[in-house]
Amino acid sequence: MSEKPEHRTEHRPPREERPPRDEQRPRGQIPPDTVFIGKKPLMAYATAVMMHFNSGSKKLTVKARGKSISHAVDVVEVVRRRFFQGKLNVKEVRIASETLGEEGDTRNVSTIEIMLERLD
Amino acid sequence: MSEKPEHRTEHRPPREERPPRDEQRPRGQIPPDTVFIGKKPLMAYATAVMMHFNSGSKKLTVKARGKSISHAVDVVEVVRRRFFQGKLNVKEVRIASETLGEEGDTRNVSTIEIMLERLD
Repeated sequence: MSEKPEHRTEHRPPREERPPRDEQRPRGQIPPDTVFIGKKPLMAYATAVMMHFNSGSKKLTVKARGKSISHAVDVVEVVRRRFFQGKLNVKEVRIASETLGEEGDTRNVSTIEIMLERLD
Repeated sequence: MSEKPEHRTEHRPPREERPPRDEQRPRGQIPPDTVFIGKKPLMAYATAVMMHFNSGSKKLTVKARGKSISHAVDVVEVVRRRFFQGKLNVKEVRIASETLGEEGDTRNVSTIEIMLERLD
């Protein structure tokens, strides 16, 4: 917040020297029909889900980990009630655990996968 | 936490004048084979789930609302992995919305129901 935008290029390496976004946050195991829910506001994700279905797709999986699990359920419920009025079906909900961290310093985090299906 | 137990009766109305707990937090629709997850530490709920199955029951539904949804998934995953080593099955997970509040001042809250089944 205290960083002034006009000085940004002096403090951060230029775009070419930074690793591409894909390498900063590995998305290797996330298939294309997936929205991963994090800490952004609900409407950011709700819009992403809407756009996905408006582009013609019939299926989408919403995934989240840890404290974002509640947020993911909120996103799905808001999209379902407010934007789709019953035409979006929750096909399946799966819960599981993932192991994070390096060897010797691992911890488990809960995960959720919500499979959505457009009905019309 | 700062409330001293010996003064409690001076600051709170005696038990007879307070509404019974059922009216403070309606549990009318919660059947007996249910654990409702709130803000207590994870192990409090994990113990409750363990005790339920150790008393001979084969089924249990874990329910939560709002931000406690993530906590509910954590409880289920910890019990499943640490205490049951695969002998506890997540039969079904349902997500939905509930409307809270009085007429004219309502809001929706997301809910989760996790149906568990003991396998042995």
